Amino acid sequence: MDKPADALQRLRRVHEDAAVAVLRSAGALSRAELTQRTGLSRTTLFSIISELMERDAVVEVEAPPAEPRGRGRPAALIALNPSAGLLIGLDVGRRRVRLAIANVAHEIIATGMADIPAGADAPAQAEAAVRLVRRVGEEHGIRLGALEAIGLGLVGIVDDPSLPASTVPAQHAPVARRLAEEFGVRVAVDNNARLAALAESTWGAARSVGDLVYVRWSVGVGGGFVVGGRLLRGAHGAAGEIGHVSLDPEGPPCHCGGRGCLERRIGSQALLEVCAARGIALTGLDSLVAAAQDRVPGVCEVISEAAADLGRILADTVVQLDPERVVVGGEFASLGSLVLDPIRQAIDGLALPKIGRRIGVTPADLGVNASAMGAIAFLLNEEPAIPGHLRP
Amino acid sequence: MDKPADALQRLRRVHEDAAVAVLRSAGALSRAELTQRTGLSRTTLFSIISELMERDAVVEVEAPPAEPRGRGRPAALIALNPSAGLLIGLDVGRRRVRLAIANVAHEIIATGMADIPAGADAPAQAEAAVRLVRRVGEEHGIRLGALEAIGLGLVGIVDDPSLPASTVPAQHAPVARRLAEEFGVRVAVDNNARLAALAESTWGAARSVGDLVYVRWSVGVGGGFVVGGRLLRGAHGAAGEIGHVSLDPEGPPCHCGGRGCLERRIGSQALLEVCAARGIALTGLDSLVAAAQDRVPGVCEVISEAAADLGRILADTVVQLDPERVVVGGEFASLGSLVLDPIRQAIDGLALPKIGRRIGVTPADLGVNASAMGAIAFLLNEEPAIPGHLRP
Repeated sequence: MDKPADALQRLRRVHEDAAVAVLRSAGALSRAELTQRTGLSRTTLFSIISELMERDAVVEVEAPPAEPRGRGRPAALIALNPSAGLLIGLDVGRRRVRLAIANVAHEIIATGMADIPAGADAPAQAEAAVRLVRRVGEEHGIRLGALEAIGLGLVGIVDDPSLPASTVPAQHAPVARRLAEEFGVRVAVDNNARLAALAESTWGAARSVGDLVYVRWSVGVGGGFVVGGRLLRGAHGAAGEIGHVSLDPEGPPCHCGGRGCLERRIGSQALLEVCAARGIALTGLDSLVAAAQDRVPGVCEVISEAAADLGRILADTVVQLDPERVVVGGEFASLGSLVLDPIRQAIDGLALPKIGRRIGVTPADLGVNASAMGAIAFLLNEEPAIPGHLRP
Repeated sequence: MDKPADALQRLRRVHEDAAVAVLRSAGALSRAELTQRTGLSRTTLFSIISELMERDAVVEVEAPPAEPRGRGRPAALIALNPSAGLLIGLDVGRRRVRLAIANVAHEIIATGMADIPAGADAPAQAEAAVRLVRRVGEEHGIRLGALEAIGLGLVGIVDDPSLPASTVPAQHAPVARRLAEEFGVRVAVDNNARLAALAESTWGAARSVGDLVYVRWSVGVGGGFVVGGRLLRGAHGAAGEIGHVSLDPEGPPCHCGGRGCLERRIGSQALLEVCAARGIALTGLDSLVAAAQDRVPGVCEVISEAAADLGRILADTVVQLDPERVVVGGEFASLGSLVLDPIRQAIDGLALPKIGRRIGVTPADLGVNASAMGAIAFLLNEEPAIPGHLRP
């Protein structure tokens, strides 16, 4: 049950959201017009407007002279602050940083990429991220002073994305802290595979799908679940780690401390080893995928067997979460039916076949920028309507 | 992003919630006092009050004569309708119906149970449920005219609990329809293991735990997940079906259409067969559990092996959902460490051991009435603050 204090606090927040939503759709309005359109009392509305003005979320603009207003100075209009609300999404991976920038209307206005030297430590990653933001900002003439917040996707377990940058877990602290210092805004951190899931459900292959299972199959195997339109984060920031479901509790040890993990069986390194054992020498993920695209004998078998293993695990996920759709991302997803068919077959055969639901299995849509875009969606989801709420 | 219409509709609902929350905490108030305490405009508040009155959620009461009001008739006060808000939870199982009744303050004021003859069809189940409600109502002097809604827990897949009783899936329709007709209220349907999960997270072993994995181990194996305080229902009403995760895709066929399902391996019937094959003759679930409690040689081994299989599947669930706690219910949970230790061991060994989180594994708390209580929690969760919202 709501306590009255909770209900009133929520009420305040919804009042703010409503005022901002009306301004977003109607443009500049007088206080009187806003009072009428929101149904709020003058007192309540005026107090909300002054708080939004303090946070630079809205500004006063002059009423156009065309409208006669009678005597005295024309009533000022309230409008969303056009130079507020810039959001940045960064995806710091093992080999690359990727960037997306969104404006106040939540349109992606720029993207970019930079390589990270192999084995770079966190400060070096942070440096690469800062340089990328500065460069892309300059190239597109973007005023970074209007930046509201940064969403940051990272590899691995991200403990608590709601923590301020100064207290994020040790391994992430240098990147998050450096960005927060450099740009003077809040940095919200989450796992980059989860952020890709969120992006696909916001703008991509699962747009308007409320319940999504997303898996990214690449060097490693990551994932993310969207449930009722919200990203499932878990109690310790570890939800979605499909790659560490065990195919065999007696199997080989994994770096996570478990045994027989899916990632250990179908990650690109494992598949390269299987190919090598079968006499097919390939140099890395890209050549493996290229060989499969060229239908090199033996390679397709290795990948479709791996897809069947992935399908078996995804079938278990589907049994438990009952999603509307399964989206497969990462480099292997580009192989189409070679990968998707064994997954579909496993789900159709094992995931409660008799109840007769159809779970769509589709490739991801957003390509390499998915996680950077997801980092922006993450900021928007946390704070749906109000610029200024995102301030540190 | 919210559209303005959505935001305004949500606003309306939050206004109602706030008004009801203030009335719940402050008791009867004049319209002027309510206007002031909620911060709403007179127009908005008056319109909300008349809608709530139309739904019998609030009533006008006379101001106490002690307060002098000046000339004219005393201003009427607005109060929550004291004879509204009775909620019933029913759990229709294979062998029994269980009942819980909650008052407007959401306290459980009565519970009850009735046997269902073996093999009873849906109309016979419905009849048993109606008789149970009437009998317990009479015994406790409860005015069923004040009934707001019925939450109904059923065995199996429940397609869409938001459907009106007249359109619930075929197998459930007779029970839901009969109850709706008999009592003239809305009947909301969900799976009874999921409802038990919700009850444990509302009143039981996982109170104040936002992320819960619940499994019920009995004749069958069911489950339910609570994520961020909300019951995870799935896109087709099938979330939480832990019992149909496959331990072996080549295993024996299951009634669900899949193969090697957990339920097929560790449900009580399967365990009785294993015992029989090992020369231990037992007659059913109760005698199996009793034999384990008496430490009958051989029986404990069968059950702890089964618990290890369950633990292996729960470890996968924990890897993917990252809950705060795992709660084990059903008859087998009463065996304590015999069952809980192998589950803990599997989770500790397989669920991302290196991240060093501690997942609590605890027995369920609410006993046999968990699902009936969960059916009430389900009604409260759907419609948190407002009696009258629950009307058909």
